[in-house]
Amino acid sequence: MHKVIFDTDPGIDDAMALLFLHQHPEIDLIGITTVFGNASVETTTRNALFLKREWSIPAPVAKGDGKAFNPMRNPTDWPVMIHGHDGLGNIDVPDTIDLPLDPRPAQRFIIDTVRENPGEVTLIAVGRMSNLAFALKEDPEIAALVKQVIVMGGAFDVPGNITPAAEANIHGDPEAADVVMTAPWTVTVVGLDVTMQTVMTRTLLNEIAEAGGARAKLLSDISQLYIDFYGRHVKDGMVVHDSCACVYLVAPELFTTRSGAIRVVAGGIADGQTIQKPDGRAFPPGNWDDLPSQNACTGIDADAVLALIAETLSRPV
Amino acid sequence: MHKVIFDTDPGIDDAMALLFLHQHPEIDLIGITTVFGNASVETTTRNALFLKREWSIPAPVAKGDGKAFNPMRNPTDWPVMIHGHDGLGNIDVPDTIDLPLDPRPAQRFIIDTVRENPGEVTLIAVGRMSNLAFALKEDPEIAALVKQVIVMGGAFDVPGNITPAAEANIHGDPEAADVVMTAPWTVTVVGLDVTMQTVMTRTLLNEIAEAGGARAKLLSDISQLYIDFYGRHVKDGMVVHDSCACVYLVAPELFTTRSGAIRVVAGGIADGQTIQKPDGRAFPPGNWDDLPSQNACTGIDADAVLALIAETLSRPV
Repeated sequence: MHKVIFDTDPGIDDAMALLFLHQHPEIDLIGITTVFGNASVETTTRNALFLKREWSIPAPVAKGDGKAFNPMRNPTDWPVMIHGHDGLGNIDVPDTIDLPLDPRPAQRFIIDTVRENPGEVTLIAVGRMSNLAFALKEDPEIAALVKQVIVMGGAFDVPGNITPAAEANIHGDPEAADVVMTAPWTVTVVGLDVTMQTVMTRTLLNEIAEAGGARAKLLSDISQLYIDFYGRHVKDGMVVHDSCACVYLVAPELFTTRSGAIRVVAGGIADGQTIQKPDGRAFPPGNWDDLPSQNACTGIDADAVLALIAETLSRPV
Repeated sequence: MHKVIFDTDPGIDDAMALLFLHQHPEIDLIGITTVFGNASVETTTRNALFLKREWSIPAPVAKGDGKAFNPMRNPTDWPVMIHGHDGLGNIDVPDTIDLPLDPRPAQRFIIDTVRENPGEVTLIAVGRMSNLAFALKEDPEIAALVKQVIVMGGAFDVPGNITPAAEANIHGDPEAADVVMTAPWTVTVVGLDVTMQTVMTRTLLNEIAEAGGARAKLLSDISQLYIDFYGRHVKDGMVVHDSCACVYLVAPELFTTRSGAIRVVAGGIADGQTIQKPDGRAFPPGNWDDLPSQNACTGIDADAVLALIAETLSRPV
């Protein structure tokens, strides 16, 4: 069983990823930490509690503090065109959910849980990297105690989505992402290079909704706005960014990766860009030296990834 | 006939490109302007005069002023491991060449020549973009009077060569390159995406030297150090970066290009990186808006390019 803390900003594709983690038989979801991104941290936390309740997820929810790692950055704009005013596709999520939060802030929850399960926890981070960076800042020793980190974010050999240089998760807190990429733990970055190839059609989502019962039906309802938005970019379907990161955990053989130090640009027109120095390539001394090699996903078997997601989301409860 | 001003920092692959321009039957080389990069501007200017003399090139040579566009940048390090202490492969170029320089600085030569040949001049720039940027600053109207600009430099979908983000020509004067890329003229960027695929083997160079007489023999002598250096990166051959830009002029059909605004990063870890916003891709308002679409080369028929170079360099004089 893979023990997972899911660091997330639900968020529509986050909701699908959460249901995947909850329903996959080899995954033990031991915590959900919330971060800003697709909406404010207040909204994403409310949404995490909502999904926890609707889907009977036992994992505790710990709230992030909603700040970027660099205090000069002040996140305020939320992509309501993509994720809705409620962050879940304008399905009228109740204002408050009568479930308790974990009393600890997200970063403390991460630290405590990693220390209680040394060498066993995978962190899957699909929002801004803020919580992970704050956790590392508060307790750098956790880097050696985490099993691996899987990040949905970044764009290496393809354009970004929020600027030509940058992907939104990384762009939303570049300093945090640079801390995460350069820490002495194993990071695999599942970025736009592969996620943009992974499009779930409306037809497949309908099939999942029919096979998977009430949980899948709710997921389908949440996802309609997102599919409408992505109609500008892909044909009648949704890019399942965050689920790709979860699939990597259980089926890494469906991905091709490239090894090398990764840095994140902070400031200037390339703000938030992820740049890898591929291992084996020689350069003059510079900013990528003496850093751990991380894995950037460069290829994906999208059909197999989609099939595994569909199978997992369709499991009878 | 294509009228060409060659802005260059000879430089070994510059020498090959210069001989290509001189010998190609459809090219009228009407000026050579020198810039720092592979060596100081004093050395590259001396080398341009040396090659002009050895190869009986009628075009005048005008010297650049050796400064970067941003006065805070102070270029001092030269890649003597690649181009030699003399900038031409350590062949003992004489300290001084008894030929006159054009009395004008390079940027003035460019402005005057473009104005004398409105709509007819192609600028091929294969060193730092400093001279072109200074010319635009002094006389912005030339942008509308230049036929096209072909740049060897940059790296779009592949790593750089001086850093993981940046190619050396652009990295050496990023502010100048950004001025050139964003000016209202047509720029085609022949960067590492395609030049790194274009490797002239030692065997082919030997064949050229045998067929092409004294000129080609000198070129071969100059190129040996460069081939030795590139042995780390490619198998027994030299990457003919600068000649690729010249081939584009006469055989653009051998290249695939992508259209879109191009910006150059100045400062930070991505300093000197070229980033294109592909036309047709939508982003929130940002730094690539309302700029001319330029052409980034993304594919090359390397075998055909090498064959054309070999044929041209082997022409009997």
